Amino acid sequence: MSRLARVVALSGGVGGAKLVDGLAAVLPPEALTVIVNTGDDFVHWGLRICPDLDTVMYTLAGLAHPVQGWGLAGETFAGFGMVERLGGPAWFRLGDRDLGTHLVRTERLAAGQSLTEVTAGLCRSLGVGPRVLPMCDTPRPTLIDTVDGTLDFQDWLVRRRGAPVVTAVRSTGPSAPSPAVLAAIAAADVVVIGPSNPYVSIDPILALDGVRAALARRPVIAVSPIVGGRAVKGPLAAMIGQLAGCAPSPEAIAAHYADLLHGLVIERGDPVPDGVPVLAEATVMTTPDDRARLARAVLAFAERFA
Amino acid sequence: MSRLARVVALSGGVGGAKLVDGLAAVLPPEALTVIVNTGDDFVHWGLRICPDLDTVMYTLAGLAHPVQGWGLAGETFAGFGMVERLGGPAWFRLGDRDLGTHLVRTERLAAGQSLTEVTAGLCRSLGVGPRVLPMCDTPRPTLIDTVDGTLDFQDWLVRRRGAPVVTAVRSTGPSAPSPAVLAAIAAADVVVIGPSNPYVSIDPILALDGVRAALARRPVIAVSPIVGGRAVKGPLAAMIGQLAGCAPSPEAIAAHYADLLHGLVIERGDPVPDGVPVLAEATVMTTPDDRARLARAVLAFAERFA
Repeated sequence: MSRLARVVALSGGVGGAKLVDGLAAVLPPEALTVIVNTGDDFVHWGLRICPDLDTVMYTLAGLAHPVQGWGLAGETFAGFGMVERLGGPAWFRLGDRDLGTHLVRTERLAAGQSLTEVTAGLCRSLGVGPRVLPMCDTPRPTLIDTVDGTLDFQDWLVRRRGAPVVTAVRSTGPSAPSPAVLAAIAAADVVVIGPSNPYVSIDPILALDGVRAALARRPVIAVSPIVGGRAVKGPLAAMIGQLAGCAPSPEAIAAHYADLLHGLVIERGDPVPDGVPVLAEATVMTTPDDRARLARAVLAFAERFA
Repeated sequence: MSRLARVVALSGGVGGAKLVDGLAAVLPPEALTVIVNTGDDFVHWGLRICPDLDTVMYTLAGLAHPVQGWGLAGETFAGFGMVERLGGPAWFRLGDRDLGTHLVRTERLAAGQSLTEVTAGLCRSLGVGPRVLPMCDTPRPTLIDTVDGTLDFQDWLVRRRGAPVVTAVRSTGPSAPSPAVLAAIAAADVVVIGPSNPYVSIDPILALDGVRAALARRPVIAVSPIVGGRAVKGPLAAMIGQLAGCAPSPEAIAAHYADLLHGLVIERGDPVPDGVPVLAEATVMTTPDDRARLARAVLAFAERFA
């Protein structure tokens, strides 16, 4: 058991959620708070959809699809089939149970609950122990500037399959984090940045008012999402080339987070960047054991800085 | 084939939809227009739900549940299960495919389409031939005054199972029918009032501005929803006692529609009311053949008045 009593994890979707799941397996629930990117959130079929929050929540509830990394295990798509048949927008697949989540969230938001409150209620119903915090309570959509023009995030990632070359990633809307986010960071013994996409999953959190300043006062370590020169999942490897003009490597991740980092966890055998303490570990999480093992190693590494 | 070129049917949900299905089986699609009660419509889980419109649409599309009379055949309830698990409102069951319909409708209404336009689009996608018209384009909710106070229609029917004794049925909201409704009635060779509940399914249509006046200029026949002193389905028999102070009978139906009626179709062997031409037929529709046979008899009877 770690001696860290207050761990904060910053997370996007799949990779971050797996590490969070490992942390939840080795920490008591009250010791873990997850701050989740909401820049991917969008309204589809009139429903407020929070892909990263749901991936974290479903993963912690043990409901996530074990292989594809998003969505629910055993999900069905009967409602989607009807929407498609009726000529509704069908470029983003929503499963039947997932729809239940979006319906409840959308209704509670409309009734005046904050996204933080709604998320807490959903997590409670699903038996999720750690605290899951959306990074902010107001919509803060990520826009992707590409050589084909500016696209909404899901439009770029899902509809256009991440193909248009990215020239910049921007957050829009009010830049205030939720009060709970700043309080959690201020109280953290250590902050762990998960192996998520720095540009579209972590930067939106870092760009909120006061978050960088709060993190600068805490020990921060990151787990590299780059393994063997590739992203474990998603469009990150190409984005590093397009946005940082270098090859995807732990060095690129270290350079991206720069002064914020006290330590970086990288894949064993990957090139070690200069200027930051490094832990080399097996970082690809295929099984639940992988997640817990990596979490234990990350926490032991973090204790050096706490 | 009937010589009636323009038949208008007024319909609520189950019973009316079955007769409409029979009419659709024996008339060319362009000869049939169905005007459907929207007084039961409500917003649930943030979605606009139109129970009678959907029952008519699903029935005409061949998708309706063959026994229960509402909802879709082979429907699943995975989304509902999730809503229930998350502590969402679970007193009204919505199936997965049915949810797809409500999502598409709600989004199109939000985008500015009228309910008439949305319904036409949905029917087109489902291959429904006859024209299906909501009675009006603005919400016109039916309220049920009961000895326990005033209740929303679905609250009374579904949540309270129709138990509270009814003292009055009222429509609220703007009273304008859609222009298409008045035009369809004005052009009708005959208007058939389906075997629906007069108080909660047909009166809301009749109470719209100009509908009674338009019907007064057309031949109108009704099919009695009372068979052997009982309602084929639903709370009608008790309502007749509570609202009209008499026993449920074809006589009560004839008295309710009064001057509007040119003829009434009743169940064989039921007591024949005075003062209106009557056709005695087998009116309970168990099979598709029953629907078509009754529709043929209704149209032959209607031709006498057209």
